[in-house]
Amino acid sequence: MRDLSKHPELLSINHATVRMQCTLPQLVDLCARKGVRAIATWRDKIADHGIEASARLIRDAGLRVTGHCRAGLFAANTAEERKAILAENCRALDEAAAVGAESLCVIGGGLPKGSRDIAGAHEQVRDGLAAMLEHARRVGVKIGLEPLHPMYAADRACVNTMKHANDLCDALGPGIGILVDVYHVWWDPELPAEIARAGRAGRILGFHVCDWLVPMRDMLLDRGMMGDGVIDIPRIRGLVEGAGYRGSVEVEIFSAENWWKRDAGEVFDVCKQRYATVC
Amino acid sequence: MRDLSKHPELLSINHATVRMQCTLPQLVDLCARKGVRAIATWRDKIADHGIEASARLIRDAGLRVTGHCRAGLFAANTAEERKAILAENCRALDEAAAVGAESLCVIGGGLPKGSRDIAGAHEQVRDGLAAMLEHARRVGVKIGLEPLHPMYAADRACVNTMKHANDLCDALGPGIGILVDVYHVWWDPELPAEIARAGRAGRILGFHVCDWLVPMRDMLLDRGMMGDGVIDIPRIRGLVEGAGYRGSVEVEIFSAENWWKRDAGEVFDVCKQRYATVC
Repeated sequence: MRDLSKHPELLSINHATVRMQCTLPQLVDLCARKGVRAIATWRDKIADHGIEASARLIRDAGLRVTGHCRAGLFAANTAEERKAILAENCRALDEAAAVGAESLCVIGGGLPKGSRDIAGAHEQVRDGLAAMLEHARRVGVKIGLEPLHPMYAADRACVNTMKHANDLCDALGPGIGILVDVYHVWWDPELPAEIARAGRAGRILGFHVCDWLVPMRDMLLDRGMMGDGVIDIPRIRGLVEGAGYRGSVEVEIFSAENWWKRDAGEVFDVCKQRYATVC
Repeated sequence: MRDLSKHPELLSINHATVRMQCTLPQLVDLCARKGVRAIATWRDKIADHGIEASARLIRDAGLRVTGHCRAGLFAANTAEERKAILAENCRALDEAAAVGAESLCVIGGGLPKGSRDIAGAHEQVRDGLAAMLEHARRVGVKIGLEPLHPMYAADRACVNTMKHANDLCDALGPGIGILVDVYHVWWDPELPAEIARAGRAGRILGFHVCDWLVPMRDMLLDRGMMGDGVIDIPRIRGLVEGAGYRGSVEVEIFSAENWWKRDAGEVFDVCKQRYATVC
């Protein structure tokens, strides 16, 4: 297992971690001041600054882009909606190509409005991924499918386990892999087997960290800083590295009442310190 | 699939559904007035009325007891704690025997205080179940292991899928089965396969219903009335009945801000109506 304290270059800060504090230029500037060499971008922040300008800014700063967030969200009730979603996902792939992202982060979407058909939602994800994969291969961007915690199945993402993600990747062929986020998968007894399976297929495209707080005050926006919760992050990092993963460790923290209210420089300092000691 | 509107006798009301409104005698009285023939009991409510008196009251009313809630909660840091938990679980088994419950509802417990060792917590559940199984067989009460939603893994129950529950039952042998609660398992793409597996082993001991609301205001106490959320309850009932289940349909709703604030008679009326139409 790699000693992260000797590999500061592997730390990536996802823009979501300081989304309330920073525009893209402010994020890039903060990375330079704090010695952070990689980021993950978000569509709205890139749009705010302009795609070409964002790509240039990131390139000139010498930053790696470990992921572009995010697309997927396949829940649709009509063929027209499906078509619009595909077009949106293709635009997200183009952006990911423009900023040089290692993958486009994709989540499944929940149930279509008014639907109780979870099996149908699963089929819709498979079909939607297949459709956007054609464009992904064309523009040379990998799809990073991220299983989200099962508590989001209804309204956000109905791909909720590594097994489901692996099954989809097996069915869909080259050009798609998996983003492993400890927050979403830490509870799963199948995790070691399914990470090993993903590793054998060479499809682990990213590794995201934050922590699961107890108690949790909000299902979406109360994610913890690494070390403040109950996830054994080194164990899971050991699993992904044991499965051959050599990529970055991306910090993604949605925290409306805590980290989003702090100074971004302070957040960076804590991220760096925790990255080097508890991840 | 059974037509529930023709089988009012299969409706069971779990005391949790009206726990703020009713003592055990009030629950039993309400069942008589509303023509409900089965209940699930809770330890604290039985203790309030006395075990012998509770058993007599239920027997005299001719009520079936589809489950006694609840035990398990194996998270421990020391041998002494483990011993105390086992003793408590044996007392719960004795109570279940006294009230004639079809099974004792058991949940895994979360991580021990201060622990991040989820694999260790899983082992602790297996060992704890094995220990209480000896007593369960002695007193002739079945253990009904209930997988809870993965969002409870840290602080309440670290057995979160039908697959995990099936694996544990396979490992532990006779005397233990599974309670299928739609709220906890509806999202799982492995559900059909794992319900079929449980059915083949003859181990589906109960079927619980409520609904998953969107949005959900509280992770524990905002469960919905059947029909008010996104769960396709008939589909899952079809799966368990297809797997050979012939038992009751137990309504268990934790709802601090809605159903717990209503008149218990009204709650019963709505439960009966929804049971006959949307389950």
